[in-house]
Amino acid sequence: MQLHETMLKMGEQAKVASRQMASFSARKKNAMLMAMADALDAGRDRIVAENAKDMEAGREAALSDAMLDRLLLSPARMDSMIAGLRDVAALKDPVGSVISRWLRPNGLEIVKQRVPIGVIGIIYESRPNVTVDTTALCLKTGNVIILRGGKEAWHTNQVLASLLIEGGRSKGLPEHAIQLVETTDREAVRELVQLEGYLDLAIPRGGEALIRAVTEHARVPVIKHYKGVCQVYVDASADQATALAIIENAKCQRPGVCNAIETVVLHRDIASAILPAMVTRLRERSCTICGDESSCAISSYLEPASEDDWYAEYLDLRLAVRIVDTLEDAVEHINRYGSHHSDAIVADDEKAQKVFTQRVDSAVVYVNASTRFTDGAEFGMGAEIGISTDKLHARGPMGLEELTTYKFVVQGRGQIRE
Amino acid sequence: MQLHETMLKMGEQAKVASRQMASFSARKKNAMLMAMADALDAGRDRIVAENAKDMEAGREAALSDAMLDRLLLSPARMDSMIAGLRDVAALKDPVGSVISRWLRPNGLEIVKQRVPIGVIGIIYESRPNVTVDTTALCLKTGNVIILRGGKEAWHTNQVLASLLIEGGRSKGLPEHAIQLVETTDREAVRELVQLEGYLDLAIPRGGEALIRAVTEHARVPVIKHYKGVCQVYVDASADQATALAIIENAKCQRPGVCNAIETVVLHRDIASAILPAMVTRLRERSCTICGDESSCAISSYLEPASEDDWYAEYLDLRLAVRIVDTLEDAVEHINRYGSHHSDAIVADDEKAQKVFTQRVDSAVVYVNASTRFTDGAEFGMGAEIGISTDKLHARGPMGLEELTTYKFVVQGRGQIRE
Repeated sequence: MQLHETMLKMGEQAKVASRQMASFSARKKNAMLMAMADALDAGRDRIVAENAKDMEAGREAALSDAMLDRLLLSPARMDSMIAGLRDVAALKDPVGSVISRWLRPNGLEIVKQRVPIGVIGIIYESRPNVTVDTTALCLKTGNVIILRGGKEAWHTNQVLASLLIEGGRSKGLPEHAIQLVETTDREAVRELVQLEGYLDLAIPRGGEALIRAVTEHARVPVIKHYKGVCQVYVDASADQATALAIIENAKCQRPGVCNAIETVVLHRDIASAILPAMVTRLRERSCTICGDESSCAISSYLEPASEDDWYAEYLDLRLAVRIVDTLEDAVEHINRYGSHHSDAIVADDEKAQKVFTQRVDSAVVYVNASTRFTDGAEFGMGAEIGISTDKLHARGPMGLEELTTYKFVVQGRGQIRE
Repeated sequence: MQLHETMLKMGEQAKVASRQMASFSARKKNAMLMAMADALDAGRDRIVAENAKDMEAGREAALSDAMLDRLLLSPARMDSMIAGLRDVAALKDPVGSVISRWLRPNGLEIVKQRVPIGVIGIIYESRPNVTVDTTALCLKTGNVIILRGGKEAWHTNQVLASLLIEGGRSKGLPEHAIQLVETTDREAVRELVQLEGYLDLAIPRGGEALIRAVTEHARVPVIKHYKGVCQVYVDASADQATALAIIENAKCQRPGVCNAIETVVLHRDIASAILPAMVTRLRERSCTICGDESSCAISSYLEPASEDDWYAEYLDLRLAVRIVDTLEDAVEHINRYGSHHSDAIVADDEKAQKVFTQRVDSAVVYVNASTRFTDGAEFGMGAEIGISTDKLHARGPMGLEELTTYKFVVQGRGQIRE
């Protein structure tokens, strides 16, 4: 069968499965998730064996250590994957909940209620836990899933999907509610995201190249997470101890994640007071720093920053520093160079806080707190399928609700339009 | 300047304008809308003159009467366009309203609040009132707009945009908050919907060909309204008088609109009782009817329907009839052939109502009411920018709220992540 027909068939099968899935009760869906967790638990040996094949192939293909580490399903990671399934089962199901309800003068009652989106495609790279985590969230919300993982994790993803299906089927999971794209052909991604009428949403999870490839070809809605170029602005009114603690935390606590910061913007009035202390503190954490001309003039430790530095997502212990004359210049810098993910102001002046939170066009804007809190669990959402840097449908941490849409159910007693 | 550079510049200018626009109060935005209405009112002669040029060119190009009618800005249509602007000014501004607010155990206060989307592109055909209507809704919600109208309405759109800008500027409308694409080159649409990072949302308004062209090329989110293939299912438990009234209303009251029905699905148990009366009633309204084999066997008036009839959006006094054995078959027909816009069940049996509203995957599902109520005004939304047949972000009638997104504002007092 040609690739196009294969993918179309997957889409059709998923759509059929999604009609069944959408009508299941929370109890039924939870039973499936628990059975899926049990199946993974019972299948640990099979998972280890398949994961070893991928690791072996990875070593032969001379994958980097970082890549191999992402690929590895250690016992601890397996525990956490299985626990994750059970945790999702325990969450509240948003499907069926009433968003709003009103009565029209003609007696029509309009009920806006949450329903599953339908068929969700996940396109991801080498982390095999994504197979399990995203399946749990999509099924919990009455959606069905088409998975397209990275070729490095081929054997691991196959066995994980098989076990999930096996477990779920024992509790009534519809056939084709979980489908794994059975080819590593790159064209399959293009075909997948062009399945108009079948695929309702594509979520790419991975680096910029993957996301660009998806966006370029997609004819279905995409929710994506581009770079996390996050920034902290220290206002002239900032408490310096607070600023230093937030900067250190946002940069160094876990530099490789999207909600870590890349740039600190300092108001000129406090720059010379705070910058030397900041440099000392960050050097103790082995962080390198570059800066604009004004910052370099204050601290000789700083290397000169280039224009590219302001756009860079280092994902590493490196920070860029810029000094601005006004709050407005800070906002302008953040909106221009940042990725509209998470940005913070450190300020005691309430007016400055207000201007900043209103004008900075980001998913999450912090006042006197670290950007590291942008996370489904930290927000109290219980689960997170990703952090959207898009503006439509979902923005910022995406939990279960964001995997649903709504429909209007209108109850009448024979009303017609005059 | 090359087209690509021209469009990119429009995008950049729009983005700058959107930052200003987003920070304006409701009062300020309303003053702009009122001034825009006044400017149109004062400019009626100019509008008439420019519209006459388009009508003249349209006649020379031998446009159909229907097309010429759409193009014409009669005094009554101008009144309604101007009144529309003032009506929108009077509506409640959703920007800034708090969607939810919660406190985390670590003391962080998370506020999820409505903000403008940013830059919205409207791609439309020959109706010049779209220029005014969509501008009003986008500016009201703090967005800025890039308009791409049909070439038939070129002169009319130019003068309307000029007057809107002139009126708005007198009350502080930012430069470039309203931009009209200054070329009728079809490539401009492609360039527009690929303005990633500048255009936040594209809304095509027009026929299927236009929408397909937009979807195919878009790299930014699109909210669209495909066909309105709406259906009424008459259950075995239906009250026949109610069914007949709803069918007549949904088909004949205004057959050329998207929420009119194209197909009636009848349960076999009541088909022979209801079909002859239905045929009589629809024939009185000059409606032609086609049907499947079973329906044709009941009424000799019916022509045989082809497979294409089930997918067809007639937009005319024509109806297709299908007889099914079960409620499940009706749901299957509706999900398969319909456009997921608006569908109705006529039934007294509450269980049948429930199954139908749960399983039919449409934006609006009616119980014992005409599908013709799918409309922003009928829903009590005050205004409508369109009816979305998409599932993401907005579904069904889209009002002002659907032209906003949200951001999270997180207030701390120095919290860092452990």
